[in-house]
Amino acid sequence: MESTSKHHVAHPFWPRDLSIPNYVPNDRSMSEILTFLFSVSGVFLLATWGITGRENASGRLGVWRRLAVCWFAVCGFIHGVIEGWFSLYYEVIPADQSFLSQLWKEYSKGDSRYAIADNFTVCMETITAWLWGPFSFWAVYAFLTNKPYRFVLQLIISLGQLYGAVLYFYTEHRDGYAHSEMGHPIYFWFYFVFLNALWVIIPLVLIVDAWGQLSGAQALTDNARSHKSKRT
Amino acid sequence: MESTSKHHVAHPFWPRDLSIPNYVPNDRSMSEILTFLFSVSGVFLLATWGITGRENASGRLGVWRRLAVCWFAVCGFIHGVIEGWFSLYYEVIPADQSFLSQLWKEYSKGDSRYAIADNFTVCMETITAWLWGPFSFWAVYAFLTNKPYRFVLQLIISLGQLYGAVLYFYTEHRDGYAHSEMGHPIYFWFYFVFLNALWVIIPLVLIVDAWGQLSGAQALTDNARSHKSKRT
Repeated sequence: MESTSKHHVAHPFWPRDLSIPNYVPNDRSMSEILTFLFSVSGVFLLATWGITGRENASGRLGVWRRLAVCWFAVCGFIHGVIEGWFSLYYEVIPADQSFLSQLWKEYSKGDSRYAIADNFTVCMETITAWLWGPFSFWAVYAFLTNKPYRFVLQLIISLGQLYGAVLYFYTEHRDGYAHSEMGHPIYFWFYFVFLNALWVIIPLVLIVDAWGQLSGAQALTDNARSHKSKRT
Repeated sequence: MESTSKHHVAHPFWPRDLSIPNYVPNDRSMSEILTFLFSVSGVFLLATWGITGRENASGRLGVWRRLAVCWFAVCGFIHGVIEGWFSLYYEVIPADQSFLSQLWKEYSKGDSRYAIADNFTVCMETITAWLWGPFSFWAVYAFLTNKPYRFVLQLIISLGQLYGAVLYFYTEHRDGYAHSEMGHPIYFWFYFVFLNALWVIIPLVLIVDAWGQLSGAQALTDNARSHKSKRT
């Protein structure tokens, strides 16, 4: 047995009386972890920016469309790799010193549901990792090759991300923001609020965009059909 | 104080040691409740079947499309009214004898998360009631008036329903089906599994349908654009 009481292992998570008996403190610093996250995301973004700048069979993509494709590439990495890690190893993360486990222990300072493998969180993250992750890379491919289903895929991924993020905030709101030090500038505002708000705001914009694109295409098709039926 | 121990009020929910201190047994029978649910759903279905049979500006709807529109009408009723009730009164339902509260107490025999106002369940049901409910009626209107966004709406509602239902089953699966008498023919298999499986299977079919319709429209639009750009 440890010298500390089972229910009072020292850890940085909230609520302070949370029991995480097997917790091992990180030996990687916050800046190492954030540098990794943002520089790999940056590499995905820049590589996709470069690739989307080339001319393809259907011409050149506009700046906003290129940015949207870069977003999906970054999402593919974050969902598939970062959240994929959580979906596979959530049971051992508090005790594990792998780099990505340390990333999740760092993030858990802003939301301890990741350190305690909260049921909804595990389910939502698993679906995000294994569906929206691969789908995001599929969307990059679909826009590069001008597939007719590209905006359908954009709509599906974005609505999936939005619904996941809304449930993520809503469940924690109803829990009284108990899993974070409410108001902490980095852990609460940056990790919990800002980073997740990206998956509310950007998907909302992309849903509106897909709505417009697909409705426009449908209007054209409906028109073509009604002209045809008038002629015959 | 009651004569029974606070943690052992007699109730029909699982797990059997669940504490529902203010529970009041239903005075409506299961058959009254199911008759209400299925006959009102049937009225919505038949009324929509009648309305969708009329010729409109863009011709006549096919049988499968009419059935899909009937589905959305029934969804509008179930999400907006039945689940809307839960989203408003989940705190008082165990003690309340209103008809719809009794319906939820009856349903809770198959999933007690509704009797204990489980956090994920309240969040998911609230979004279902207040978004997918009105959106379902909007979809009925959109198909009747042949709006160009009708399949976008079908895709949004169906993906929302599917994601909600998948999380609903997945969270309970990870809880070991603790909130139901596993294997009970009516409460587990009919209420919990069958009724909710409808919101997995039918949305899946309608997502595939919308994918085909919208991709087809986009292909036509992409073609029209590339012909135009070749001409100019």
